[in-house]
Amino acid sequence: MHPTTLVIGGCRSGKSRHALEMAHAAPARRKLFVATCEPADGEMDERVRRHQQERGPSWHTVEAPLELAAAILQAATAHDVAVVDCLTLWLSNLLLAHPKDPAAIDSRVEALCDVLAAPPCPLLLVTNEVGSGIVPENALARRYRDLVGQTNQRVAAACRQVVWMVAGIAVPIKTAPLG
Amino acid sequence: MHPTTLVIGGCRSGKSRHALEMAHAAPARRKLFVATCEPADGEMDERVRRHQQERGPSWHTVEAPLELAAAILQAATAHDVAVVDCLTLWLSNLLLAHPKDPAAIDSRVEALCDVLAAPPCPLLLVTNEVGSGIVPENALARRYRDLVGQTNQRVAAACRQVVWMVAGIAVPIKTAPLG
Amino acid sequence: MHPTTLVIGGCRSGKSRHALEMAHAAPARRKLFVATCEPADGEMDERVRRHQQERGPSWHTVEAPLELAAAILQAATAHDVAVVDCLTLWLSNLLLAHPKDPAAIDSRVEALCDVLAAPPCPLLLVTNEVGSGIVPENALARRYRDLVGQTNQRVAAACRQVVWMVAGIAVPIKTAPLG
Repeated sequence: MHPTTLVIGGCRSGKSRHALEMAHAAPARRKLFVATCEPADGEMDERVRRHQQERGPSWHTVEAPLELAAAILQAATAHDVAVVDCLTLWLSNLLLAHPKDPAAIDSRVEALCDVLAAPPCPLLLVTNEVGSGIVPENALARRYRDLVGQTNQRVAAACRQVVWMVAGIAVPIKTAPLG
Repeated sequence: MHPTTLVIGGCRSGKSRHALEMAHAAPARRKLFVATCEPADGEMDERVRRHQQERGPSWHTVEAPLELAAAILQAATAHDVAVVDCLTLWLSNLLLAHPKDPAAIDSRVEALCDVLAAPPCPLLLVTNEVGSGIVPENALARRYRDLVGQTNQRVAAACRQVVWMVAGIAVPIKTAPLG
Repeated sequence: MHPTTLVIGGCRSGKSRHALEMAHAAPARRKLFVATCEPADGEMDERVRRHQQERGPSWHTVEAPLELAAAILQAATAHDVAVVDCLTLWLSNLLLAHPKDPAAIDSRVEALCDVLAAPPCPLLLVTNEVGSGIVPENALARRYRDLVGQTNQRVAAACRQVVWMVAGIAVPIKTAPLG
């Protein structure tokens, strides 16, 4: 079975860079980058441009702000490795698209876990830890924080490897069983 | 001496579930759940109900919003294992009950550490990491953050084992000495 | 080459205490404490006084709110070990001093990394993880969070050892190569 890896860490902990380096290190000719963000404002635009520049031209990029599982399944068969960056923005998009329909969000998370159970190619997923600060005063922020934490747990359980990033350093916290 | 374990992690990192699983794995017939929260609002009520449902009927629950050490000592002798969930809510209750009396809070933390030095049964304590975000603008939140961090240090020093939770994965960071 | 160690963790995770204990454990006669804060308000004053008391009289303290690399180079040659506490306050000072000049901040971070590449004495640097909470609503806080995370990565890459602090427990996540 293809390996699946979750890369989790705080903001600016080097998660994306580490996932890209892992993908580069693999003998992968055709590399897929699945971006979950919709470039919506100036701050995000600039970040997206910078990230594309850092990746270089050897990557094929698709955007999947909402239907992530379908996008991976459709594009990944033509690629040797795929990086999904990142689950936190995807969950933010889902929460904005379905503010009163938790089941709609849940079914998409379930679909992603199904993909991870039978991955079409090696998959590297990037996500943020957002729950280690003070409880936010804003109710939506609390709901988002719960959703991200619960999803991170489900995805980590479905992945064979999990890496915890601190200051650019990759700490393996779940390793694939041998064989 | 009975083992003592601190389970620490961010919000929705799987702390409570892990503590319950550790208690289930032990050969413990009579299981005690020490809840530190006072079900006060709808959001919390719902969480409490969900947690009780997840635990199942084999647990005896006591509530200890303030006098945690006394509650553990009183109830634990009749049980084979106890889970305390969680220290962060307990500290929040203490800060609200004694807003101008740090010594009153400190003496309760000290009493808990005394219990951990001579535990009446195997103890599993759950707490949150709340200090890895941006400094809060609110002065009370900063005080709370300091109190939680300092208490986590004291309790971790008094426990034989400490487990760091990330996305549902338990990372042992302090392990009991042999023998 | 002299060892260089980054001690990173959340607020009240025991970072400063651990760095001081590492310095005490080394056979260091003349100990330097490089404080990056400018005692500006009551809350900070009190913390500074408490920290000085905890260190004891065997330490020589210099203050380096902005020109950290120069301060280390100048003072460290007369000392056997130096603790820098902390990078997060230093970056906050730099951001306030150069709000519209990222290059000015960048050159100071670069200068610190140059010092770490050829340290004048064993160096222990303390920094905070600030990126594991919810995205702050405040734009300046987001900029600060990015700056701290990026700097932590650069400094961690330049240090031979990195220690992650959780509840007072030191978890080594980057260890010096032998020899």
